[in-house]
Amino acid sequence: MPSIIECIPNFSEGRDCQIIDQIADAALAVPGIMLLHRTSDSDHNRTVLTFAGTPKAVIEGVYRAVETASELIDLTKQTGQHPRMGAADVVPLVPIQGITLEECAILAHQLGQRIGDKLQLPVYMYEAAATRPERRNLADVRRGGYEFLVEHIASDPARYPDYGPASIGPAGAVIVGAREILIAYNVFLDTTDVEIAGRIAAKIRESSGGLPYVKALGLFVDGRAQVSMNLTNYRMTPVHIVVERIRELAAEEGVGVERSELIGLMPQDALYAAASAYLQLPGLSPNDILEHVLSQVNTTSDR
Amino acid sequence: MPSIIECIPNFSEGRDCQIIDQIADAALAVPGIMLLHRTSDSDHNRTVLTFAGTPKAVIEGVYRAVETASELIDLTKQTGQHPRMGAADVVPLVPIQGITLEECAILAHQLGQRIGDKLQLPVYMYEAAATRPERRNLADVRRGGYEFLVEHIASDPARYPDYGPASIGPAGAVIVGAREILIAYNVFLDTTDVEIAGRIAAKIRESSGGLPYVKALGLFVDGRAQVSMNLTNYRMTPVHIVVERIRELAAEEGVGVERSELIGLMPQDALYAAASAYLQLPGLSPNDILEHVLSQVNTTSDR
Repeated sequence: MPSIIECIPNFSEGRDCQIIDQIADAALAVPGIMLLHRTSDSDHNRTVLTFAGTPKAVIEGVYRAVETASELIDLTKQTGQHPRMGAADVVPLVPIQGITLEECAILAHQLGQRIGDKLQLPVYMYEAAATRPERRNLADVRRGGYEFLVEHIASDPARYPDYGPASIGPAGAVIVGAREILIAYNVFLDTTDVEIAGRIAAKIRESSGGLPYVKALGLFVDGRAQVSMNLTNYRMTPVHIVVERIRELAAEEGVGVERSELIGLMPQDALYAAASAYLQLPGLSPNDILEHVLSQVNTTSDR
Repeated sequence: MPSIIECIPNFSEGRDCQIIDQIADAALAVPGIMLLHRTSDSDHNRTVLTFAGTPKAVIEGVYRAVETASELIDLTKQTGQHPRMGAADVVPLVPIQGITLEECAILAHQLGQRIGDKLQLPVYMYEAAATRPERRNLADVRRGGYEFLVEHIASDPARYPDYGPASIGPAGAVIVGAREILIAYNVFLDTTDVEIAGRIAAKIRESSGGLPYVKALGLFVDGRAQVSMNLTNYRMTPVHIVVERIRELAAEEGVGVERSELIGLMPQDALYAAASAYLQLPGLSPNDILEHVLSQVNTTSDR
């Protein structure tokens, strides 16, 4: 069984399909890397690509995607709802099979060093690959965004990059790291009042006393107030618990949940946990699903 | 792609594991038949086996299971919560892949004729294999159960079997048919009052003006009142809609839903529909699930 990692790079372009295609194609030129999913949002002005494959293939492909993005995206002209600091903004490596988080952190450092050295971009290491506690959390690393970093990277020792130069061009900086699987999940409210989304986000996120393993922002997207989230431990705080809580908080604000949106992919366990909770059907698993069970047994013999 | 059918025979024994094993083993002696699932309930005194495979293998295997059950189960001594008319009580064939419902109905008739002729058991054909409109519905065919049939099979023309003799022994009669996939689903209430389950069943079942494609009975199982159901078209009336409605009706009765129970298997679509509704995530599909997407792509190349 080969080792498999996932990499979910976030790029600060969600409008120009040609640019997005060029970035994806740069990675896909490497044999053995697979594109599992892509999501672009024009309000966020951001694209999330989900790659998987052997560590060697993924690291090489993602390096090329970062290189292409840094040539094609100019942050001095880029605007969007979503916080960002780089053309290739965040590059997390995730262990999927036959590899540990620690090994992914080592790979992240190899990738970060190469981006810093060869592309001459400032690189910050985060989460399991962080070099100091205050850089573990993505939001802390990215605080102030590109525009703030331009002002401070050379003068503020706290902003000195882990790899690459302490100077910044139109491609900005790259935040590279390793982490466990997360679920990127947005909930649209049936209101245009972004302040309501902001208040709900503040109540729901761990950093201000909300639910554990939830990061949340209130944004204005697709003409609606949106609670935009990363769920960093879906086993401890399941998606459906978060959605239930937002429904409650929305009702308190006199609004409702219009719909949700998944960015990238969701682990199978999260699907089963949601259905199991809703149907009050404890222990629901793939062994209860006809298609799964059929796929597990041999259907070819007709002796 | 070979044709695949499913057969979900229901046997009137849910307590004696040795008997159940002998019935299952009789079918599994046929190459090419697979046992996907088994559920036994001692209150129902009933076992549901889910077989799948090529039509030829499934028909042969199920014939042998019916033969074994008719030798081992004596309905003159059998008692249980669940209505029943035979040792092998109900034998539905379900099209899964590369075969139509009409073709399954033809197979059902071949199986029914063989059971009638060789095992000398009265056989009633139901659902898509019914020979007259009043025999389409299982509950109508089984009305009065074994004890009533003993009194009426020889004297009442309406009870004349489709195959086999118009006389009945301790193995009772067999109801054979063809139908689309259904979901057998039970909801336990947090009360011992079986009359509440009966009232909820009456409000929820189609035949008394409830939800379309829902059959329901109130039973007393595992020390709890239970709403026992067959959902005969889960696309038109999804499982989660039924559970939601029972939660409402239970609340009106001043009780709650304790948990649900799936008998046999559930189609994948029902799982996704439930999670999608609960998470308010429209269009949720296998393409959103990491494990599914990974399994669809080639992970071996590392050139």
